[in-house]
Amino acid sequence: MTQNPANRFSTVRARTEALAAPLSSEDMVVQSMPDVSPTKWHLGHTTWFFETFILKNFGAGYKVFDPLYNYLFNSYYNAVGERHLRPKRGLLTRPPLSDVMAYRAHVTEAMLGLIGLGEKHKDWPRFLQLLDLGCHHEEQHQELLLTDIKHVLSCNPLKPAYLPAPPAANRKAPIQAWISYQEGVFEIGHDGSGFSFDCEEPRHKVFVQPFELASRPVTNGEYLAFIEDGGYACPDYWLSDGWAHVTEKNLACPAYWEKTESSWQEFTLHGLRALNPEQPACHISYYEADAYARWKEARLPTEAELEVAALSLNAHGAANDAGKGLFHPEVANGAGLLQIEGDVWEWTASSYSPYPGFKAAKEAVGEYNGKFMCNQMVLRGGSCATAPGHWRPTYRNFFYPPDAWQFTGLRLARDA
Amino acid sequence: MTQNPANRFSTVRARTEALAAPLSSEDMVVQSMPDVSPTKWHLGHTTWFFETFILKNFGAGYKVFDPLYNYLFNSYYNAVGERHLRPKRGLLTRPPLSDVMAYRAHVTEAMLGLIGLGEKHKDWPRFLQLLDLGCHHEEQHQELLLTDIKHVLSCNPLKPAYLPAPPAANRKAPIQAWISYQEGVFEIGHDGSGFSFDCEEPRHKVFVQPFELASRPVTNGEYLAFIEDGGYACPDYWLSDGWAHVTEKNLACPAYWEKTESSWQEFTLHGLRALNPEQPACHISYYEADAYARWKEARLPTEAELEVAALSLNAHGAANDAGKGLFHPEVANGAGLLQIEGDVWEWTASSYSPYPGFKAAKEAVGEYNGKFMCNQMVLRGGSCATAPGHWRPTYRNFFYPPDAWQFTGLRLARDA
Amino acid sequence: MTQNPANRFSTVRARTEALAAPLSSEDMVVQSMPDVSPTKWHLGHTTWFFETFILKNFGAGYKVFDPLYNYLFNSYYNAVGERHLRPKRGLLTRPPLSDVMAYRAHVTEAMLGLIGLGEKHKDWPRFLQLLDLGCHHEEQHQELLLTDIKHVLSCNPLKPAYLPAPPAANRKAPIQAWISYQEGVFEIGHDGSGFSFDCEEPRHKVFVQPFELASRPVTNGEYLAFIEDGGYACPDYWLSDGWAHVTEKNLACPAYWEKTESSWQEFTLHGLRALNPEQPACHISYYEADAYARWKEARLPTEAELEVAALSLNAHGAANDAGKGLFHPEVANGAGLLQIEGDVWEWTASSYSPYPGFKAAKEAVGEYNGKFMCNQMVLRGGSCATAPGHWRPTYRNFFYPPDAWQFTGLRLARDA
Amino acid sequence: MTQNPANRFSTVRARTEALAAPLSSEDMVVQSMPDVSPTKWHLGHTTWFFETFILKNFGAGYKVFDPLYNYLFNSYYNAVGERHLRPKRGLLTRPPLSDVMAYRAHVTEAMLGLIGLGEKHKDWPRFLQLLDLGCHHEEQHQELLLTDIKHVLSCNPLKPAYLPAPPAANRKAPIQAWISYQEGVFEIGHDGSGFSFDCEEPRHKVFVQPFELASRPVTNGEYLAFIEDGGYACPDYWLSDGWAHVTEKNLACPAYWEKTESSWQEFTLHGLRALNPEQPACHISYYEADAYARWKEARLPTEAELEVAALSLNAHGAANDAGKGLFHPEVANGAGLLQIEGDVWEWTASSYSPYPGFKAAKEAVGEYNGKFMCNQMVLRGGSCATAPGHWRPTYRNFFYPPDAWQFTGLRLARDA
Repeated sequence: MTQNPANRFSTVRARTEALAAPLSSEDMVVQSMPDVSPTKWHLGHTTWFFETFILKNFGAGYKVFDPLYNYLFNSYYNAVGERHLRPKRGLLTRPPLSDVMAYRAHVTEAMLGLIGLGEKHKDWPRFLQLLDLGCHHEEQHQELLLTDIKHVLSCNPLKPAYLPAPPAANRKAPIQAWISYQEGVFEIGHDGSGFSFDCEEPRHKVFVQPFELASRPVTNGEYLAFIEDGGYACPDYWLSDGWAHVTEKNLACPAYWEKTESSWQEFTLHGLRALNPEQPACHISYYEADAYARWKEARLPTEAELEVAALSLNAHGAANDAGKGLFHPEVANGAGLLQIEGDVWEWTASSYSPYPGFKAAKEAVGEYNGKFMCNQMVLRGGSCATAPGHWRPTYRNFFYPPDAWQFTGLRLARDA
Repeated sequence: MTQNPANRFSTVRARTEALAAPLSSEDMVVQSMPDVSPTKWHLGHTTWFFETFILKNFGAGYKVFDPLYNYLFNSYYNAVGERHLRPKRGLLTRPPLSDVMAYRAHVTEAMLGLIGLGEKHKDWPRFLQLLDLGCHHEEQHQELLLTDIKHVLSCNPLKPAYLPAPPAANRKAPIQAWISYQEGVFEIGHDGSGFSFDCEEPRHKVFVQPFELASRPVTNGEYLAFIEDGGYACPDYWLSDGWAHVTEKNLACPAYWEKTESSWQEFTLHGLRALNPEQPACHISYYEADAYARWKEARLPTEAELEVAALSLNAHGAANDAGKGLFHPEVANGAGLLQIEGDVWEWTASSYSPYPGFKAAKEAVGEYNGKFMCNQMVLRGGSCATAPGHWRPTYRNFFYPPDAWQFTGLRLARDA
Repeated sequence: MTQNPANRFSTVRARTEALAAPLSSEDMVVQSMPDVSPTKWHLGHTTWFFETFILKNFGAGYKVFDPLYNYLFNSYYNAVGERHLRPKRGLLTRPPLSDVMAYRAHVTEAMLGLIGLGEKHKDWPRFLQLLDLGCHHEEQHQELLLTDIKHVLSCNPLKPAYLPAPPAANRKAPIQAWISYQEGVFEIGHDGSGFSFDCEEPRHKVFVQPFELASRPVTNGEYLAFIEDGGYACPDYWLSDGWAHVTEKNLACPAYWEKTESSWQEFTLHGLRALNPEQPACHISYYEADAYARWKEARLPTEAELEVAALSLNAHGAANDAGKGLFHPEVANGAGLLQIEGDVWEWTASSYSPYPGFKAAKEAVGEYNGKFMCNQMVLRGGSCATAPGHWRPTYRNFFYPPDAWQFTGLRLARDA
Repeated sequence: MTQNPANRFSTVRARTEALAAPLSSEDMVVQSMPDVSPTKWHLGHTTWFFETFILKNFGAGYKVFDPLYNYLFNSYYNAVGERHLRPKRGLLTRPPLSDVMAYRAHVTEAMLGLIGLGEKHKDWPRFLQLLDLGCHHEEQHQELLLTDIKHVLSCNPLKPAYLPAPPAANRKAPIQAWISYQEGVFEIGHDGSGFSFDCEEPRHKVFVQPFELASRPVTNGEYLAFIEDGGYACPDYWLSDGWAHVTEKNLACPAYWEKTESSWQEFTLHGLRALNPEQPACHISYYEADAYARWKEARLPTEAELEVAALSLNAHGAANDAGKGLFHPEVANGAGLLQIEGDVWEWTASSYSPYPGFKAAKEAVGEYNGKFMCNQMVLRGGSCATAPGHWRPTYRNFFYPPDAWQFTGLRLARDA
């Protein structure tokens, strides 16, 4: 944690509340599908994390805000007791939002008191470590808050906007070029200096064959060509499970796309809008990403390839992350390897598995990532909804192959 | 409509709003199961009924509040256009409650204007007929508002109360006696004087065999004896479909009952409370009612039997309906045939079928009841949540055999 | 039992085996949906009935064929022990058919021995009663054997025939006339002389309003007009549950109908054939029957109406039951009230409920019918698959509203 | 194909028929779950493969046995037309087994004719390639035939045996030792000399960290200790998806295990038997394998690790594959790295993904493996049901994490 801890903590906490501010308490209570959590729950759960893993352990004399909240706001930590079932988070009309905001204030104040003790604090290095984890954890939920409320609003026939639309770039996406990389033994994974999530470690060697990477993600216009070529009607392009998925769900386009008589529209955090063919395609599932790549006679990159490529960049430039406030992917700009950070999470061909030598922490907080390492695919690069400063080149995000409510897109790769 | 129409209408409208008043906007938005509608939806739908069937037809110059509301607040009337799907009513965070209340005010005002025209009104008798239907329709939703919010609150681990508990009767239920009725050809059904729903007509002859009816509904204590005798573990007492139901859902007691280590508790509109063995049992399904009756070597009455019995009463006494404000069944008091009105809806052995000669109305409003006449059972008598003055001896309520979220109980009958 | 008991029993047993004879052992093992039982299971279960309720009680020294068969061939009698689950009947590749046939021979022989004792038998009247019940029970399964194997064969892309087709009638159906009946108090139900199933008793009075009945069932051609008029696309004609059913299952015609480019075909026990517009429509569900009647501005008759009508016939004529060997409904012939027996089971508007005064038997065999008296509708009249001599005017068959794999059709009624 | 092609082909064909010989035609028709195919279907499908990909292309003048069989016996090849749905394979009572055997004879004879032409044959090398593929394909189905019929028989309350039990080894399993391997860049994958399935290619470099491998698979006795330690009741050991799986399915032991009052039994191809604690544990899912490893503070090996280890063996010894005729895992014998081939398929920590540079074939036969490369895990080593000679060290088998009806076990690994 290079920043002043109190500033860092306060900034994170305030940013969550700023993201919730455009919403009514009614907007914040509803769960539109089991994967989605209500905004109010995100507000409570991120607070519960600090209370449970820091205040209860380090806060001498800390008074728990409400003992029942441990049941309500635990997500999946078996070691810290029973919990409210995930698909029932949308039933919590009580505690009211005002109580949850009071809970936030109570915990924020207690935390700032503890931080103020500084190095006089017992076990200060461990405290700082957990504080850092709590801040990054809350940043993760900031992204989910945005993608979850997008889903909630999209289910409403009124198609309401989260925020009014900012001005959009009026330019063409650059031509997609292929960038070549040599084979070799590379080191990937986090080296332990500075913060990372457990799944990014340990740093280790991999052998990577020669490959080529597209200079930017696939655009809406390019993806539309796949649709118009009958991509959703031809099983040849699809994984067997993917074909079963689109057939069963009767899918014919990415999530949030709607075809009207004359044109394609897309539901965004600014309401329903005409689809911009120059912007990166997003809200596509792994199955769709894989099918598109097969149709283009290319493939998805592995996570090692994307990490090697990301590390090869000298400067990352100004990413379109949530700090930009667009909350939507934007048209690429410039030359060379573009949008490696921000805009859309890029599906990789890599399943989410432990790195060689991975060890899950033994404490409750160690339930963090290891238990999810099955049936999910790695995504790389961050998105337009990722908290500013949250991303690293070693960052591993992960979702199930059918999932499409995140800002998920793809970049093509091919064998050299 | 014997009452002054403007008063009658205003009273009904105000009563709905009074029932919603103890709830927050968060409480009003959530749908806890597909059968349940959010309070906000009830507020909107009852208003939509007046707008659609009266203001649009009779209100020269009436300005529709919002054309999209026809989609949002239509329940099942196919003839008036597409509609929002029932299981998705809980996704309507917008329009906000404040807009729905403005919608109510707009429609109430326009209606009062029309009513004020009185007999100068074109087609005044038909207007009065539809006004009457709209008021009774809104009263039906007043009862559902209560039973639905009870379900919503019951899903919350905090077990919140809708209202603080009023003082409860501290008395024993009278001994259950058997009252005898002679056989004969009786006329049942509504004779068309005054208001009734379409399914109550026409009045017609039935032959009823001699029978005996219990003097009051089954109590919690009596039902508990069935549980303690292993009633839920013995298939002999159950209909085949009922046994499949309790086995699949793993049921061992009525809805809202909870067994703690030392005692039985019951979730009520006043929160979780000790089960009172003297009160009528409620929140039991048809399957449970039928199994209990079989265990007692009795049976459920038919709807004709209950109507014959209700008509035999000279005075009905002060029923425990929602006008009493208890919102929970109360211990019976007195002698003779008791609680034939109020307290709990009583399951009958009669399936919900058209009366001989029944004709559904041809207009949209005629979708009212006929289409539900399959797979459901008739209940008689009104409950502690029924609007005061809403019930008649010919009243036919109906639910599916597994349904238990209404205030449903039973009264025993047997062949004479 | 008016017939010689040994002859009666032998005839029934032999007839079941004759019905199975055209099938291979492979045909006899498969279960194509949970409602269907394999032929081999029918062969075993009907045998188990005699073994369990007669031989074990009356057959001094009777040696059980195989104790495990009690588990395998019990249908739903809780009182006689655990049983193999219905949806898993198609997994019984063992015992092989040859063993089941040996089981049949063993039980048939033991039964004939017992019957031979005649009145010397202990409790001969009760024995005769149970023998009669067992024979009628086996006749019921003879009909199910036919309808179940029809479903099995229909699932096969090869569309195999159970038997070669007999010559079909080449005539027009008579014009449908309306026959009038007066109101009054009638007695319906079985009077206890001769055999009946428990649900047909007791005989009791009902008041029937004046009504009119169609002279014959609805034909394929008439039903086709409903389809061609958009009947399956218009919710107005359907019960709410019926509309949900056809929408969810994507139904657009009766079961076993298939539309080719140029014509309608129908799968029959003689394979796939051109639909004959003059034959009675069959394999329609209650929902379809009800929707058709509504489209015709008529209604379904009640079971009392059909019983009153059936009793009014002096002679029933030669019914097209399974004794005819057509195993398919045939074109009506003659004048007056036609096809009141045979051809198709006719859906009634009556739910399957206990008659006033109905008492279920206390012994195991008493699980016979009472436990199914919920959620099902009564059908009257027998079909082309009903064993000859099995039907009576008081006969009550019953199925769930969506069921369509029986030979089910409809006859219109209307208020006079 | 080093063997004489005609001999090789005849041997494979005859072996399939020998495996089916102990079964009745009834046994061969049933499908006990969607994953299982009936024996008759395996007999037909393996024949269809030769007819479709060889006889139709190479067999000048070949007369198709029955054109409908292309629909019935196609498994998942979209490019060769519509097909009968997998979960409905158990409905094919027709064609009867005798027809399917005639189909086999017809195709076998035509194939032998073509093979006899030898190098005079047009495109002989491609012919040999497809012949080889067809033989290996049929060998795969020989294993499935055994695992599928095991499942069918296990569903039968009579618990029948496929074959009488051979004598079992009466010895203790050797102590589990740890064998160490150095890190380095290794080449894995098939080098193209001799037969392999497409997914085994291309040979490519991987970097493998130092690791240790258990000398033999986990035994029943060792796995039982996990059960007795409460392994199925403690979420800490389980992947999140695995915990959901065992909770939802209510699992408390491997498939086919049954606990009686006094002991553990296991259903085998020789019927129900006492569990032998010394034999390798099998019929465990990936979730169970992973949980067991976590409980032992070890992990599952990657597929690269197992391939490196297998290649390090000079001689593989006599594997317990299906050639042994035991059809059940046997107690390990000897020292060093044991049972790397045969006995049980060993779950690896590797998801089934394309090797770098993998290209799916463009023709229909190229649907072979690529489309399954998602959501499945690699298994290595062959089993007691694998055809003799079928296995190679590069062999990649794959199943979904919950699957347990194959002979699946595990071997522990750990970081060095």
